[in-house]
Parts: sequence; C-alpha cells; structure tokens
Amino acid sequence: MIIALDAMGGDHAPSAIVEGAVEALNEYDDLEIILVGDEPAVKKELLGKRFPALRIRIIHAPEAIGMGESPMAAIRKKRNSSIRRAVDLVKAGEADAVVSAGHSGVVMALALIVLGASAGVDRPAIAAMMPTFKKPFVLIDAGANVDCSPVNLFQFALMGNAFAKHILGRPSPRVAILSIGEEESKGNELTKESFKLIQPAGLNFMGNIEGKDLFSGEADVVVCDGFVGNIVLKTSEGLAETVIKMLKQEIGSLPTGRLGYLFIKNALRGFKKKTDYAEYGGAPLLGINGTCIIGHGRSTSKAIKNALKVASEFSRKKMHEIIRQEIEKNKTMLPLKGNPVAAG
Amino acid sequence: MIIALDAMGGDHAPSAIVEGAVEALNEYDDLEIILVGDEPAVKKELLGKRFPALRIRIIHAPEAIGMGESPMAAIRKKRNSSIRRAVDLVKAGEADAVVSAGHSGVVMALALIVLGASAGVDRPAIAAMMPTFKKPFVLIDAGANVDCSPVNLFQFALMGNAFAKHILGRPSPRVAILSIGEEESKGNELTKESFKLIQPAGLNFMGNIEGKDLFSGEADVVVCDGFVGNIVLKTSEGLAETVIKMLKQEIGSLPTGRLGYLFIKNALRGFKKKTDYAEYGGAPLLGINGTCIIGHGRSTSKAIKNALKVASEFSRKKMHEIIRQEIEKNKTMLPLKGNPVAAG
Repeated sequence: MIIALDAMGGDHAPSAIVEGAVEALNEYDDLEIILVGDEPAVKKELLGKRFPALRIRIIHAPEAIGMGESPMAAIRKKRNSSIRRAVDLVKAGEADAVVSAGHSGVVMALALIVLGASAGVDRPAIAAMMPTFKKPFVLIDAGANVDCSPVNLFQFALMGNAFAKHILGRPSPRVAILSIGEEESKGNELTKESFKLIQPAGLNFMGNIEGKDLFSGEADVVVCDGFVGNIVLKTSEGLAETVIKMLKQEIGSLPTGRLGYLFIKNALRGFKKKTDYAEYGGAPLLGINGTCIIGHGRSTSKAIKNALKVASEFSRKKMHEIIRQEIEKNKTMLPLKGNPVAAG
Repeated sequence: MIIALDAMGGDHAPSAIVEGAVEALNEYDDLEIILVGDEPAVKKELLGKRFPALRIRIIHAPEAIGMGESPMAAIRKKRNSSIRRAVDLVKAGEADAVVSAGHSGVVMALALIVLGASAGVDRPAIAAMMPTFKKPFVLIDAGANVDCSPVNLFQFALMGNAFAKHILGRPSPRVAILSIGEEESKGNELTKESFKLIQPAGLNFMGNIEGKDLFSGEADVVVCDGFVGNIVLKTSEGLAETVIKMLKQEIGSLPTGRLGYLFIKNALRGFKKKTDYAEYGGAPLLGINGTCIIGHGRSTSKAIKNALKVASEFSRKKMHEIIRQEIEKNKTMLPLKGNPVAAG
C-alpha cells in the first residue's frame, strides 16, 4: 500500500505531517509513504528519527498553497504544489491513495480535475465521522458542495451507506436525511424532494432526523447538502469545546475548584479522546476515481497517522470501486438527471 | 400590560403553563394574564394556588391542537383552539401580546394570518437567544422560513439588530451571516447574495461567521435561513445534552466516580443555568403587527414565567413598531422585491 502524503498541508506542516508519517510506518508494516513537499524542509524533519527508511520516499514539490488562496487561481498558478504532485502520483498509478491536510477546496478540486468523478456520480462529497453517545455516524456531505440537488443527496445516501457498511462494519446502516422535523412533510424543498428519491431505494431508510437527535447515535448515515453539513460539523466542534471551557470555568469558580478539577481531569481526557477529530484522522472524498483523504487543517501527528490508516483501509477495500458499482446499480432509480449548481 | 397565554400549548400543559402564569403574576406587579384554554382544566390547576386574582382571567377555548397536526388543516378545522383565541385577543386589542408553547407552526401561521406581517416585511422570523462563553447572541431565523431569499436575510439582519439593540442593550450590535468561511466569497448562493445586501446597510456588519466561532460570543446577531437556523438550534441543544451525558458517564467509570461527581455537581448546575433555554423563556416572532412569543415545546413553569417577561418587555418597548420603522427606513436599500418561496 503506497500513500502519497502532502507534507506541506495543514497548520502544523511539515513537522506534524512528517512525524505522523513516521508513526504510521512504525505501526503499519504494509505501508509505504511518499512524502511530497519541500525536500530540504522534509529532510530536516526526518533527521534523528527512527523509521523503516526503505518504506519512505521524498518527492520535491516546493510550492505550498496558503489557506486563504482562491482554489482555482492557486491551481492554475502553482503547477508544482505539493497537493498537485501528490494527486498526480495517484493518477499515474505510483500511489494507491493521497492524504492532505492542506486547503480542502484545493484538494477537492484537484482530486476532481486530475482523478475525475466516478462514472455516474454528479458530485463527489466529503464523508465525516461524527462521534455520538453510542457510536459514530457518517455525515455526508460535510462541505464539498454548497448548493445541491435531490439527485446529489440521493447519491450521498448511497455513498454514505457503502462507507458505513464496508468501513464501519454496520451490516444494515440506518440512513437518514437531516431536516427540521421527522415527518416527510417537514423540511425545505431540497430535503422533501430527496426524501421521495431515497425512500424507495432499498436502503435501511429511517426518514428525517432532527438536529437534537443527531448525537443520540440512532443513525449510521446522515445526509445533507455541504453547506448545512459543514455548519453542523463546525458548530458541533465549536460547541463541544465551549461546553468544556464553560464547565472548567464553573468548576474553577467553586471553592472546591482545584480539587474538583483533579477528580474530573481523567473524565475530560476520556471525553476528549471520544470526540477528538484526530481519532478519525481524516474525511474521505467519496465519488472520485481513487482514494483521497482530507485531513483537518489543525492536524496533529496522531491525526495524520490515523488519516494514513483510513487511506490504507479505503484503498485496500477498493471503496471507490464499490461506490461506483452502487451508483451504477441505482441509476435506474433516478427520474431525472442531476441538476448541479456551481460550487462556492 | 395584558398578555394572552395559551394554557393548552406544550408538553406540560396546562399545569406548567398555569404554574408559570401564577409565578409571573406574583413576581411582576404590572402584569395581567388571560389564560386561554379549557376552563375546567385551567381552574383545576389554579385551585389552592395563591395569586393576585384580580389580574387573571380565563377564556374558555376547549380545542387543543396536537404537535403532529398539519398547521393549515388544524387552523381550518379548529376555530376555537386556544392558540387561535389567544391571538384573536391581541387583534381585538384586548391583550398586548400573546405567548404560546404550542405547535409552533400553528402559532406562526395564526400570528401571520390574524395579525399580519409588518408593512414592508416579506417574512416574519423567529429570533432565538443562544448562550455562548461570553454573552448570548440572537439567531434569526430559528425556524420560521425554510427557503429564503437574500431580501429575507437582509430583513432578518435589520430585525435582529433592533432586538439586540433595544432588548439586549447592545449599543452597536455586531451582525454576521452564518456561513462556511469568513471570506465574502465563501458560502452558498443565498449567503453570498445576502452579503452584498447587508454589507452597505450601515449595520455593524462583521461579515460571515463560521459554525466553530458561534459560541465564542463575538457576534450579537447571526443571520441565516430558518432551515439552517433550526438545525443549528436543535443540534446545539442535543449536543450540549450529549456532552454532559458523556462526561457523567466518563466520571462514573472512574474509580473516584461518585466523589468526582459530587465535586462537579455544582459546576454542572451552573452550566445548566447558563445554557438552559428556560432562562430565555421564549423566542419572539419578529416582523408581525403585534407581540408574539413562541415558547419551547418542553416549557417548564420557569420557561413560561420568563416567556411572559419577554412578552411584556417586547410589548412595553413597542418592538413591533421599532421594527416596522427600521424596515421602512431601509426599504430603499433593496434592489429587488423579495422572492419568497413557500414555507414548509
């Protein structure tokens, strides 16, 4: 399993990226990694580290793309960016998968341009793992497509279902549409039309799910457009952090503050582990001809190590091929051609 | 100040509603309440309670509307419902405001049909108070309009601004659009077009805000369509509850579990008070000719008492008149007529 890893992407690049690669190599014997980035900088990070040197390579790609750059302009101008070169390696068959914690808009666009969408997929989508009280669920689309059609949501349901089945091992994933009421009649135009498409498709469809029930863990796959999905993802992240901060503040303001904090320190650590994005590593971009894992901008070495693990699993199981077949199998379900609206 | 209170609305009606009315009467001297509902049931709840009897009246309206009923069908069939009669009292000038924790779709529809939208307002909207690490902000629209136009969002910004200024006492409210990136270019078609309308309007506009920053408390007013707003509202509610549940579970699984829990019990109580919807009582429906406060379906007596307080404040300050003037003042800013899409 050979994975092209963008060494320049993310807030803590290249150090956290290189460190994560080394950790992964030491943990997974079947892994080979191509570090794509500024060679001197990457070599400096590797200095003094112990790792199986035969399973690591560096490809020099000095141009980094900043988080604030416009995706299309950056792609046009920087033909030797680390993201570009990493995706190219998958296209050329030199790598089985690509992992990047860089500018997610650029990663998505390049994956789509270079590798292409799977046959029959109108819009590739990001599938994010969301922790709950019970077990994580798949949120799809978590931010790739801001304006979506019902056909897009139908395909997200099929792709999320394949993810939950083959990667999470849920035999019959419960699929739901994120909406503002459980009844079929509740929601906006998009969710109501999507409901009609998804319901007869033979999935284990549980109908609409409301925001308040997301974290009880009843659904395995939750479908929405990328605007709503990204807002849910980030609101949850921000809120969980705020709740912990507020609780710490409350504990600190009590006379027993320091002592109380000592008692719950371990509980907080356990909670953080369960809700830490780094545990899941990265979110796959589903619906393209290849394996592409998008890491969190704040990726730590642990997040990168786990993203490499996810990439390896998706690639080994040939998830992109499974998804292509699922879409193919269901194409007769579609009464109309997808009506894609420009991505933002 | 006379407030018409729907005695039959909400999961704990009529007991919690009547109890909340009594608490409010005992606390606020200038308040008179008309309890609208099934008279025998309401009288039974009042039995044995101490309250200033001269400031309370009952109007018999025996028909209750269930949470699962279709709003328009229920409105057509049940002409003597408690919600209907309570709204009618405002229209007739017999009450200054109406408070209901009943079927929110029905309350909104009746407020719009009976009282009417303010001159110039295309779509009335629900303004919900959201707790943050610092101070609460106004989320508008929290669920009244599932499909919105940029003109709707522009008007929500004006209405939310008036709320934050006159009710929350923020001299120059910071107004933001909820989106998936801070830059103007980030978002969906709706937020990008809304940005262009809101930016030149002379508000203290801070641009887009992302989900992850909502709870840091930087914005006073956050504008979005009612679908997104309702999902954010309910996701936050569900997540905060889940975080506490997960933390308790973590604490319980430690050897020091019971002891640790004792230490943080007070902290949890303080946190709950800060994040409890009941502290805010209810969310006003802004942009109608009158004062209408929508209570939470799970309203406790405390929530009802606070909703009555909110209703009283909105009415005393003539918020609906202030909002009408704000919309009037800004109507030349609008390049086009609102393009309302049917509410779901």
